[in-house]
Amino acid sequence: MTEHIQYSAEKDALILLDQRYLPNREEWFECQTTEDICYALVVMVVRGAPAIGVTAAYGCYLAGREVQGMDGDWKEFLQSKLGQIHDARPTAVNLRWAVREMQRIWNEAGNITLEDLLPLWLERAKEIHIGDIAMCELIGKFGGALMDDGDTIMTHCNAGALATAGYGTALGVVRGAIDQGKKVSVIANETRPFLQGARLTAYELHKDGIPVKVACDNACALLMKRGLVDKVVVGADRITANGDAVNKIGTFGVAILADRFNIPFYVAAPKYTIDIETPTGEDVPIEDRDPMEVTHIGDHRIPPEGVEVYNLAFDPTPNELIAGIITEEGVLYPPYNESIKKLFSAD
Amino acid sequence: MTEHIQYSAEKDALILLDQRYLPNREEWFECQTTEDICYALVVMVVRGAPAIGVTAAYGCYLAGREVQGMDGDWKEFLQSKLGQIHDARPTAVNLRWAVREMQRIWNEAGNITLEDLLPLWLERAKEIHIGDIAMCELIGKFGGALMDDGDTIMTHCNAGALATAGYGTALGVVRGAIDQGKKVSVIANETRPFLQGARLTAYELHKDGIPVKVACDNACALLMKRGLVDKVVVGADRITANGDAVNKIGTFGVAILADRFNIPFYVAAPKYTIDIETPTGEDVPIEDRDPMEVTHIGDHRIPPEGVEVYNLAFDPTPNELIAGIITEEGVLYPPYNESIKKLFSAD
Repeated sequence: MTEHIQYSAEKDALILLDQRYLPNREEWFECQTTEDICYALVVMVVRGAPAIGVTAAYGCYLAGREVQGMDGDWKEFLQSKLGQIHDARPTAVNLRWAVREMQRIWNEAGNITLEDLLPLWLERAKEIHIGDIAMCELIGKFGGALMDDGDTIMTHCNAGALATAGYGTALGVVRGAIDQGKKVSVIANETRPFLQGARLTAYELHKDGIPVKVACDNACALLMKRGLVDKVVVGADRITANGDAVNKIGTFGVAILADRFNIPFYVAAPKYTIDIETPTGEDVPIEDRDPMEVTHIGDHRIPPEGVEVYNLAFDPTPNELIAGIITEEGVLYPPYNESIKKLFSAD
Repeated sequence: MTEHIQYSAEKDALILLDQRYLPNREEWFECQTTEDICYALVVMVVRGAPAIGVTAAYGCYLAGREVQGMDGDWKEFLQSKLGQIHDARPTAVNLRWAVREMQRIWNEAGNITLEDLLPLWLERAKEIHIGDIAMCELIGKFGGALMDDGDTIMTHCNAGALATAGYGTALGVVRGAIDQGKKVSVIANETRPFLQGARLTAYELHKDGIPVKVACDNACALLMKRGLVDKVVVGADRITANGDAVNKIGTFGVAILADRFNIPFYVAAPKYTIDIETPTGEDVPIEDRDPMEVTHIGDHRIPPEGVEVYNLAFDPTPNELIAGIITEEGVLYPPYNESIKKLFSAD
């Protein structure tokens, strides 16, 4: 697949495949400024926790470029712009991680000039970008080993190449299984309201020739009951210290159904998705997004005017429903507070 | 609310509020022939098990009108047209019940002429039509008594006035509670793919001034977890001899989630929805509908071309997840094979 996040040295800009229009149109969105980056994050030109992290890393660099030549205290301007990026979306920890990482470089560089800081940040953003693909391939290797030949894997939302720098986390596990010579196929829950499953997961798997069938979120219980689902693999926007996984709205319900039908439910995410500072999923802020995402499909309004809707974008899945957390350093198993502590104590 | 199923004596036709265009446009669809009736049933101009039953009853009369003046054996023609109506949709038992009821009248009338049969059928169709509203009001009375003041009631799909001749089954319970002086509000699951919840349930409740909020089907688990749902009440297209309830796809998942969060899950349906000839929900044919209902919203295609979808329209909810079955003759409780047997032994 074409890389959907591209840094253009020529334009000194971040070029993003605009995921709002997939699979119907392949349009590119060019980010030159902090405002462009924040807009792209908020309206979901780019989405998916690792892709958000990569975008935010480049975003910090672009913020620095923007501050160049401004009158006044560049440090203050830059700090404020980093804050804007940091706060663009509340749930995914990767966004905060990327901004903090840039902040760390700045702090450690001491009394550095902006001119000297910028190349350090651009280099680090590129490292995070390239490193993300390598992480996903490792997640695919470890996760692929948990899949069996002939498996049908259900996934929710899009935790694929489009949600990362490439290869994917949950879909990285699918690709990993295939790379290991296993024949697997995918059921993509359509994932209302933003339809990332029907649009993005179907798009990237179909493009790669991986068998995929789309189902309404409502079909989940019946498909499981009929024995059509062997494993569930999803991504995560944030995993807390106890192993709860906050992911796209509906994941929690899928996990409860998988539990009922004794179907293993796995979460695939890079290590830096684990937020050891947050004790449980209940402590993670759940983004309440624009009601228009629920009320409208294209220009078409669904419920009558005057009727309110819920648009909670994520839900926490409690650790007891998770069979394993697949990271680039291996698979974590319950009890997660221990396996997570062990993972981080190696640092 | 305006009656959405109207027999016009002047036009000798059945006039249906076209539910495909609600809530955006109120268009009326006129049925003169068997073909009109079958089309209306198949594309869901009218839907909801009791409303389908009423429509089918008038449809048999219209089939008789159509056969009048045909050359050849009217009985054979009529039989074939009744067969078309009978087979228009496979899951709801009410459709089959209505056709069989007309067949019974015909059989019992012996060697009757078509001219004499037609007024009997029209009269019976009107009885079924009016009787349905009365049944729903009784369901509302019995079901309303199970609701508590202040309850938020989640419902799936539309089992309201629009799914019956009026008042509704699940929404009849909501209306019944309100008629009993209780303050209740509704969460309408949007109910992909046909969006009956977001479109129809929201439309009719909002029109009646009953508080309603729409949620994506995916939000169900989180809303329940947060304590925002006190009861679940749904309709049914067919209840089997053991008390399994076949209803709109997704109902089964909602029932499992309600069970997990100890929220009472009720099914509201008239007695003739109970099909004592079919032992369990697993024995009920599940309609596999046009994939376009999933792939398209309006003219807008969601998944990429070439990707297949599931469009199973119903699922069976096993009896152990059902707290009570609310009928016009009272509330049935487990063990349902016994309470159902008792209900029918009174006939």
